[in-house]
Amino acid sequence: MKVTKMAIILAGAALILFCVCLDAADNAAAKFPTGYRQWVHVKSALIGPEFQLFATEGGIHHIYANDKAMQGLRGSQFPDGSILVYDLLETAAKGGVTTEGPRRRVDVMLKDSKAYPGSGGWWFGRFMGNNHQDEALTEEHRAACFSCHQKRQTQGFVFSEFRE
Amino acid sequence: MKVTKMAIILAGAALILFCVCLDAADNAAAKFPTGYRQWVHVKSALIGPEFQLFATEGGIHHIYANDKAMQGLRGSQFPDGSILVYDLLETAAKGGVTTEGPRRRVDVMLKDSKAYPGSGGWWFGRFMGNNHQDEALTEEHRAACFSCHQKRQTQGFVFSEFRE
Repeated sequence: MKVTKMAIILAGAALILFCVCLDAADNAAAKFPTGYRQWVHVKSALIGPEFQLFATEGGIHHIYANDKAMQGLRGSQFPDGSILVYDLLETAAKGGVTTEGPRRRVDVMLKDSKAYPGSGGWWFGRFMGNNHQDEALTEEHRAACFSCHQKRQTQGFVFSEFRE
Repeated sequence: MKVTKMAIILAGAALILFCVCLDAADNAAAKFPTGYRQWVHVKSALIGPEFQLFATEGGIHHIYANDKAMQGLRGSQFPDGSILVYDLLETAAKGGVTTEGPRRRVDVMLKDSKAYPGSGGWWFGRFMGNNHQDEALTEEHRAACFSCHQKRQTQGFVFSEFRE
């Protein structure tokens, strides 16, 4: 009897864990900003070896915004559904020409006021390389993202400004 | 009588010249790729002092494509109405971070098979700085553009390839 009860509890726990993992995986995959390469290109910058955070940020990065995020960048509030992407690529330099290499990662800001009231309505996410499935940030990372983005509260917590 | 005739001829010539200039100005302004900053960002590169053509090409450039040009970049023929933009900006480097500065110029490729049969169907144009009115290339310049782009005949005369 005791063994059966234990088995049922363990099976139940395993099932819950499985569902939670499945759900997390689904959410992460669903949060990859599919199609962002067709969105508006906001601005770009190149990070070289002199920069303090070169190890993690080195390369060329492009910022992309979906239509809703463009409303925010044009001076309105960022509506729910706004998505901003920081697309970081390796670079290779030859004969004075710096060209784009493989993708390092895709960082995402996604606005959902009801789901993320503690971080100005924004979810912060990260997808390494060309992996669209596995979201890489811990909750501590996300808190660190928001801590820095908080400096831009009056700009809706967004650093980038649209280059006309 | 002779003076009157000369005056009429001169007035006529002036009128024709005025109309031709007006027409050219209209065409040039009409050919500026208005709204291209909302088009798809194809790729980017940075040109530094080591590069042979640094004087004219130095800075960061971004390539943009309208929807029709994207059909061409995705492997189909470039349909008439395809427009590609080469957006060249100055750069400023500080502490290892290279950021975007003022616009140097906007180069344009516009496909119109009937109008430009001699250059693979493409018109080549240039707008300096943020001047959207005055197109800057001579016919000799345009021939030089095409002479180089001819190397890419099998790619529809287009150098850029879409970075996924």
